[in-house]
Amino acid sequence: MAQPPTPMPSLSRTDTLRGMLRAPQLETLLGDAALLAGMLRFEAALARAQADAGLMPAAAAELIERVCQALADDPARLDAPALARQARRSSTLAIPFVKRLTDEVTAADAEAGRYVHLGATSQDVIDSATSLLARAAGGALDALLRRLADALAALAGQHRRTVMTGRTLLQAAVPISFGWKAAGWLAQTLRARQALAQVIDAHALLQFGGASGTLAALGPAADAVAQGLATHLALPRAPISWHGARDGYARIGAELAVACGGAARIGRDVSLLMQPEVAEAFEPAGEGRGGSSAMPHKRNPVGSMLALEAAYRAPGLAATLLAELASEHERGLGTWQHSAFVLSDLFDAAGSALEAITEVIEGLRLDAAAMRANLDARQGFVFAEALTMRLAETLGKATAQRRVEALCRQALDRGVSLAQALADDAELTAGPDAHRLADVFDANAQLAGADAMIDAVLAQWRAAS
Amino acid sequence: MAQPPTPMPSLSRTDTLRGMLRAPQLETLLGDAALLAGMLRFEAALARAQADAGLMPAAAAELIERVCQALADDPARLDAPALARQARRSSTLAIPFVKRLTDEVTAADAEAGRYVHLGATSQDVIDSATSLLARAAGGALDALLRRLADALAALAGQHRRTVMTGRTLLQAAVPISFGWKAAGWLAQTLRARQALAQVIDAHALLQFGGASGTLAALGPAADAVAQGLATHLALPRAPISWHGARDGYARIGAELAVACGGAARIGRDVSLLMQPEVAEAFEPAGEGRGGSSAMPHKRNPVGSMLALEAAYRAPGLAATLLAELASEHERGLGTWQHSAFVLSDLFDAAGSALEAITEVIEGLRLDAAAMRANLDARQGFVFAEALTMRLAETLGKATAQRRVEALCRQALDRGVSLAQALADDAELTAGPDAHRLADVFDANAQLAGADAMIDAVLAQWRAAS
Amino acid sequence: MAQPPTPMPSLSRTDTLRGMLRAPQLETLLGDAALLAGMLRFEAALARAQADAGLMPAAAAELIERVCQALADDPARLDAPALARQARRSSTLAIPFVKRLTDEVTAADAEAGRYVHLGATSQDVIDSATSLLARAAGGALDALLRRLADALAALAGQHRRTVMTGRTLLQAAVPISFGWKAAGWLAQTLRARQALAQVIDAHALLQFGGASGTLAALGPAADAVAQGLATHLALPRAPISWHGARDGYARIGAELAVACGGAARIGRDVSLLMQPEVAEAFEPAGEGRGGSSAMPHKRNPVGSMLALEAAYRAPGLAATLLAELASEHERGLGTWQHSAFVLSDLFDAAGSALEAITEVIEGLRLDAAAMRANLDARQGFVFAEALTMRLAETLGKATAQRRVEALCRQALDRGVSLAQALADDAELTAGPDAHRLADVFDANAQLAGADAMIDAVLAQWRAAS
Amino acid sequence: MAQPPTPMPSLSRTDTLRGMLRAPQLETLLGDAALLAGMLRFEAALARAQADAGLMPAAAAELIERVCQALADDPARLDAPALARQARRSSTLAIPFVKRLTDEVTAADAEAGRYVHLGATSQDVIDSATSLLARAAGGALDALLRRLADALAALAGQHRRTVMTGRTLLQAAVPISFGWKAAGWLAQTLRARQALAQVIDAHALLQFGGASGTLAALGPAADAVAQGLATHLALPRAPISWHGARDGYARIGAELAVACGGAARIGRDVSLLMQPEVAEAFEPAGEGRGGSSAMPHKRNPVGSMLALEAAYRAPGLAATLLAELASEHERGLGTWQHSAFVLSDLFDAAGSALEAITEVIEGLRLDAAAMRANLDARQGFVFAEALTMRLAETLGKATAQRRVEALCRQALDRGVSLAQALADDAELTAGPDAHRLADVFDANAQLAGADAMIDAVLAQWRAAS
Repeated sequence: MAQPPTPMPSLSRTDTLRGMLRAPQLETLLGDAALLAGMLRFEAALARAQADAGLMPAAAAELIERVCQALADDPARLDAPALARQARRSSTLAIPFVKRLTDEVTAADAEAGRYVHLGATSQDVIDSATSLLARAAGGALDALLRRLADALAALAGQHRRTVMTGRTLLQAAVPISFGWKAAGWLAQTLRARQALAQVIDAHALLQFGGASGTLAALGPAADAVAQGLATHLALPRAPISWHGARDGYARIGAELAVACGGAARIGRDVSLLMQPEVAEAFEPAGEGRGGSSAMPHKRNPVGSMLALEAAYRAPGLAATLLAELASEHERGLGTWQHSAFVLSDLFDAAGSALEAITEVIEGLRLDAAAMRANLDARQGFVFAEALTMRLAETLGKATAQRRVEALCRQALDRGVSLAQALADDAELTAGPDAHRLADVFDANAQLAGADAMIDAVLAQWRAAS
Repeated sequence: MAQPPTPMPSLSRTDTLRGMLRAPQLETLLGDAALLAGMLRFEAALARAQADAGLMPAAAAELIERVCQALADDPARLDAPALARQARRSSTLAIPFVKRLTDEVTAADAEAGRYVHLGATSQDVIDSATSLLARAAGGALDALLRRLADALAALAGQHRRTVMTGRTLLQAAVPISFGWKAAGWLAQTLRARQALAQVIDAHALLQFGGASGTLAALGPAADAVAQGLATHLALPRAPISWHGARDGYARIGAELAVACGGAARIGRDVSLLMQPEVAEAFEPAGEGRGGSSAMPHKRNPVGSMLALEAAYRAPGLAATLLAELASEHERGLGTWQHSAFVLSDLFDAAGSALEAITEVIEGLRLDAAAMRANLDARQGFVFAEALTMRLAETLGKATAQRRVEALCRQALDRGVSLAQALADDAELTAGPDAHRLADVFDANAQLAGADAMIDAVLAQWRAAS
Repeated sequence: MAQPPTPMPSLSRTDTLRGMLRAPQLETLLGDAALLAGMLRFEAALARAQADAGLMPAAAAELIERVCQALADDPARLDAPALARQARRSSTLAIPFVKRLTDEVTAADAEAGRYVHLGATSQDVIDSATSLLARAAGGALDALLRRLADALAALAGQHRRTVMTGRTLLQAAVPISFGWKAAGWLAQTLRARQALAQVIDAHALLQFGGASGTLAALGPAADAVAQGLATHLALPRAPISWHGARDGYARIGAELAVACGGAARIGRDVSLLMQPEVAEAFEPAGEGRGGSSAMPHKRNPVGSMLALEAAYRAPGLAATLLAELASEHERGLGTWQHSAFVLSDLFDAAGSALEAITEVIEGLRLDAAAMRANLDARQGFVFAEALTMRLAETLGKATAQRRVEALCRQALDRGVSLAQALADDAELTAGPDAHRLADVFDANAQLAGADAMIDAVLAQWRAAS
Repeated sequence: MAQPPTPMPSLSRTDTLRGMLRAPQLETLLGDAALLAGMLRFEAALARAQADAGLMPAAAAELIERVCQALADDPARLDAPALARQARRSSTLAIPFVKRLTDEVTAADAEAGRYVHLGATSQDVIDSATSLLARAAGGALDALLRRLADALAALAGQHRRTVMTGRTLLQAAVPISFGWKAAGWLAQTLRARQALAQVIDAHALLQFGGASGTLAALGPAADAVAQGLATHLALPRAPISWHGARDGYARIGAELAVACGGAARIGRDVSLLMQPEVAEAFEPAGEGRGGSSAMPHKRNPVGSMLALEAAYRAPGLAATLLAELASEHERGLGTWQHSAFVLSDLFDAAGSALEAITEVIEGLRLDAAAMRANLDARQGFVFAEALTMRLAETLGKATAQRRVEALCRQALDRGVSLAQALADDAELTAGPDAHRLADVFDANAQLAGADAMIDAVLAQWRAAS
């Protein structure tokens, strides 16, 4: 079985191109430097908390903090490729990282080197750094969600009476207003913002338990150190260490997938409205935006595309976190070692989707005339429901439905509008309610219920601002 | 292209066998009869609310309510196979259902038949019925989670000092107590219970919007009808109809997958502890439980298996709901028509997992002697960390680690315990701290931190009870 | 911890309503009766193979076969609810099933009862029955795929010159023909048919290994019995038992998800073409097809919806099978016990999607005039690429692109067609190639490449028929 | 709605740390440089094929080829961060890439610049480059699978008679040999190798269709150019362009997930066998391998962990590809723009899993004595099935089962072995078959069936080598 030794990876590869699927707002909050910075913050805070608890000399803690700060300022000194190479053999990034940090501290003061990472386990530093990333990236997403909500609220208010076709199952249904449509997007955005903030607050926590999670190594000082660490990192504590309980991160991941889906839902609608045959709404144009390499005239719905691609990727990533909850004993095998990476991918997906769709909504161009024209086209069948309801008042629903279906067929056959077909129906127009039938073709008259809903959503938006 | 006409499905198939993967507690809360009952409740409440709002005669509403009740009492009259056959052609169950109900009402009173389902759309009745199912099934899960939490709390309290091996990455780490392990399961169960209740309360809502969602058909009475409907069904209203916004159901689905995963995590551990070479814990025995068809002596971890199989299925189901958020316009194509079924499968999975694991925990047998024996086996290496920490106080961490690694190697080579290897080390036992080295081999002495965590979790449990 | 005993599930629930998401062609091939029939076939064939190998009296085998046949003819005698109840306690359906079968045989002849299920393990009968289901359901899908391919081939041939807008990123690109579009769907359908047949043939295999998989219990007769069993069931043998190796079923599951996705891709396009503003293609109409409960005029793309809903569900089910490959040892915990159910759901999803979309394609109505009109609308920008290519021959690509972009802008500003804007460009029309510029606006002239592709796909179709 | 302009992403982020989850063998085959090299190869081959077809001067093609080569040699000149930034606005990497390449060529010769990317569309270059990546990475995986198969074949042959406990549902079942276990892993590895090669060969194809996919822009030369391109790139052609048909890539993705799962299955077993209480097999040790930051004595199953973490991630990635098959029209929105990245992640996951587990298997240490001891422990109940089968020959299966169950209970109660309990049973040992009962406790005697399976798998391995 003599095999040539496996070559060490050079890890020279870069993956910058997939930066096209990331938002600038999260660019420095994730990735190597951000993760290492979080790990350094943990080690510095641990030293300080232990010094405060009398477990190490204040001078040693200060030195450790200083070295951590210096490395965070110049992360290249940590040699990420070397860390990754060694991490592959040791199963966790924390081992080579702690060794490297200890070497740096020891080089300055051998005595202080004794105290690096004392009483902590690998997963303590990795999970806590991941929680720090989650809070920072979550803050950036919150800002995007707020911007998106504000832009949607403006649209909802301005376009209460911009009537357009309501579409169900990709068919014309009954009239709505664009403002009501925007209010639906807004309601969902407000839910996403609230739920994401809540889930990050509840589950991006300090991890601190030592080898098996019991803080055994720290003896009576355990609680004071844990509290100090939580304070210095501004991370809430859990009542018990959670190395093997990944439900919190799974919840964050699911909510990030929901955020992607919400942005993509807006992108779906915008891209459908932007079809040349519909032409009711358009993504903002701009230098380099949405061109085609083969077709000079084409303008692609780029922002919608970015939201949709993120929403195609996110459920699988969220399912990964959901699928590894049944991990083994106090710390599982393969179930947490990639948490920081999988969660980062989800934060990036959500950031990309939200940034792209926020830009779309902030610069959205509407064509109200096209909306109106599409609504009126096709014989005015979108008014059939309203007509049915009105006729049902006297004829009953079943009869009314049959009569309106017949009118629709006549309108189709004769190539006239539904209104005309009605006008030509001697029986219906002779009825006592004839004078009440005209306004069923007035889209605006049917938007009272929609208005109340817009107001309710805007009230929620104001309350959340 | 002349094809023989596609045969109509007979729909004679039953799927009772997969009932083996369901909990009895949810048996009547989901499935055909429950879904139809929810739909009937919606139509009855709609009639009553419309009568209250003056949109139909009180007598008609009373008749509709009476017919709905009669059909709910004898759901076979609705002929589920026929409904399914027709639903396949009409894209939604609601259409043949409403037609059937209308026929029944009309047969009693043609006038009243006019008012059935008035102003509502198919998805209104389907989604609202789904929300009713979710609340009922959610209540059953809450009761299971409470039972599970109570059983875990008892174990956490009773076994604070039942020392056992802490295991990380499937290797022995440092000592823990079984009570502490149970407290970790309990903390996760409390989170699941709280999060599930919250997510169902927030997202299992009334759906009521009519054709495009704007309640246009009801005119000025819209709000009163909606409020009456919400009251009669005890379903909260959303500020705006949400036919196209499936984020709420996706959140419920994700939380159900988390619940499965939590139960499965307990099952994973129990099944690992039940391995014959470990033999520290055992599922309850009982008539017909866990036997093998080929091996008479075998006792399988059946409850753990049920929890694990559910947790393998749930993430894919949850991802389905997450993946269909980007639905089209006011009502999507293919993205909500199966919501009731997918959510039901998730509720069933969670119910099966929780019922099985609750039974496991309530009847769990522990072998404290085996726990102790396994802890002491293998030279007592689980005490190596504690020894390292103690030595580090004077030697520094790096030196201490090197010394303990050497002692471990000696112990292995000589076939003695780590304690013996230490006792035989002239240098270490001659040091000033020699008398302080003995208690590092006392597992109980290392459980103070664990005790505090148990107390914190039990306090949460008490607060939630 | 005294708890009231958990009630036994009554298992009275039916799930007939979700039959709306199933194809009639698979109705009797899956579900309780089909699974039990497969299990009975296994036990009968096992008895016969063992009698042939001299392991049991021929009379006993004949009796077992007779009882199996009788139960298959009247599956209600097996009492599926009781089997499911008992299976929940024993972890596998096979245990109560074998017990029930043994009781029946023993009642007829106590001697023969000794030989039921001899040397087999629970998973042998479950997996083999699942393979039988897979082959039967796979055959039904093959017939649907063939019908779909035939219908698509007819469309591809008939509509070679039915020009329409090619659409990329939901924007108009350059002209295509509907025949070419259908040929693309056909190519994908042929791949699906071939791949599905191949994967079922390779992986729906006999399972037969006994307790740990080594056939230890059968001694020297093992191979003969296995071979006999394979022959009687017409199931290929694997070289080694595969209780713990679920990769084969995972491949079948993935291919079923691909089949769903292929049908849904057709459904996506049809539903987009059926939008009222596009109106180029329509699903077949018919009694009860696609109506709306609230809008009498509406005709919904029901077949497309059914294909899409299946494609939303299938990836999660396929991922479930992919996610449980890392099962434990010779037979995993929770990773195979639901295989028959998860695979059945995937077969049902694929059957529903394929049946629905085959009916759509077989009855598809096209509006060639609308296709042409949409192509010519919007200033004829879909010809911009062809114009660019032609101009590039003399001007170079970059210059040509700039010129055509300018022409497009002029056409937009002036409200004229691109052809007109070109005709009004003094410089371009004065060039030496002016006479060659006209035919860039002839869509048909650009379909030569498309024709070759259609021919290539039709040749594949003919070869596969 | 005046918003500050969105900052351009600096794209300074690196993600080197996640290199810990990648295999060195694939390090240079994926990532920025590899993707850009593939795109450059496409553009160079396109120029050459077009020159051969007379569509451009040979000198222009030679220059384009030279520039492509120069850029491939020094990819930094392409400025990946700038490409990514621009790609985010244009929806595809190809647009800024082609612009950059055109600028470079034009700088050398304006005439030649006219011919860059002529007649191709963005997705042609992206998909073809992705297919090139897939073939290169697939080759590296094939080599790993071959190494793994060879190592497993050696184990299967050497350990035919290394008896150990067969384990089902994590309980002891009946004896197997380690060679038989390895043969099961080998069979699965051979399936994975064959299926992966087949799926890549069938689906990693040339993409070449131009704007809408019909090759309209190239006129009569289309076929010759396509063929030349295929030849130069050594990529097979499809019969029709497949921009909107992503089933091929979805199949590759699913098979990569299967490969991960196969490696993880081995890792699951090795890690379970490596539990200190079992201690039958061990991953190879080595400098830096598997240490713990907190526990100096601990040796973690690092290779198994790497395989498992990959298998937790892969199903979600595969499901992503399966979930985006229903893309829109000739080229979808958001469904293919990330294909290169998602497939790369899957190749990386499979590479990491296979490399890690190959190293584990090549260096696996077994403890045959421990295997034997574990087999004999617990009263020898693993022989209960064999005893039952032997007794059944005369007593019938049901009676034999009852007797053996009773013997097991006696053995447990008395603390003796099953063999002893049998020896003490006057009735059974007085029977005519008494002398034939002894060898049921001989594990080796029960491995004949296993031997035949090992031989069958080894024969497959030899045929595939």
